[in-house]
Amino acid sequence: MATSCLSNYRMGIMQFRIAARADVPAILSMLADDEISRSRGFGAAVSEEADAAIWAAFDQIDADPANELIVGDDEGEIVATCQITVTPGLSRGGMKRLTIEAVRVRADRRGSGLGRAMMAYAVQRAREHGAGLVQLTTDKRRTDAKRFYESLGFTASHEGMKLTLGG
Amino acid sequence: MATSCLSNYRMGIMQFRIAARADVPAILSMLADDEISRSRGFGAAVSEEADAAIWAAFDQIDADPANELIVGDDEGEIVATCQITVTPGLSRGGMKRLTIEAVRVRADRRGSGLGRAMMAYAVQRAREHGAGLVQLTTDKRRTDAKRFYESLGFTASHEGMKLTLGG
Repeated sequence: MATSCLSNYRMGIMQFRIAARADVPAILSMLADDEISRSRGFGAAVSEEADAAIWAAFDQIDADPANELIVGDDEGEIVATCQITVTPGLSRGGMKRLTIEAVRVRADRRGSGLGRAMMAYAVQRAREHGAGLVQLTTDKRRTDAKRFYESLGFTASHEGMKLTLGG
Repeated sequence: MATSCLSNYRMGIMQFRIAARADVPAILSMLADDEISRSRGFGAAVSEEADAAIWAAFDQIDADPANELIVGDDEGEIVATCQITVTPGLSRGGMKRLTIEAVRVRADRRGSGLGRAMMAYAVQRAREHGAGLVQLTTDKRRTDAKRFYESLGFTASHEGMKLTLGG
């Protein structure tokens, strides 16, 4: 099973691969460095000392073949991340679907084609997992993101509906 | 771990529980009995003899604690179904999210409160799994469905984007 991929992004060697524990602080920084995420109360409180819930989540993803936390590694620098989940289902003749969450490109690398390269890698992983559909949701406030995904062939055919549960 | 729940729906005893192999034909009938699903080429070809891919999907869901195929069982009759998937993630402080797919209520039971009862069960399962967010996507052509989910507290805050992969 291929779990990494080299790409010629920006003349250097960009590797997309499964995240290791040592990559978690860089991933958290990218997740926090985002206006919409900050508006959800995520950001200010995040330090490089990730708390127990975050390490538990990392361990769970790491142990589960249906979940992959991916990073873009530019010669040791973590500059992009996303998470993919493969879900089996009875619909459409038993078709698997791949869901992409938590897509981030480090601020200083945006607009460089890196996001596009990472999405191509995620779609490649979908094919390797035998998925027939790739899906994601993007906040309606992120109009650039919607255009970006449309340029990759995604269709905004669905409403993405969310319900936050109180404690 | 609670995996079933009794509800007083329609004066009878409606049980929501994990699907067994014997429930698969009834689930497939509900998945096929839907105009939008038929427009995806799913429906006409589906018989009660589910093919190998469908049984493989059932076995995979059945073996995975992160995936639950749920049925509404009205004294032995399967009248509703949905699938839930619990996904760990690093975002929002290591919050788990629960994704709902393939929601169906049998045609002759629609408009009776059954869908609402099943969604309440799915949200209960989300809490039992420790999830902080419940999410689903609904085809924009299903305007009634969007209103239904909004009435349950869901917000259509996101675009649901899909990319079908060719063979």
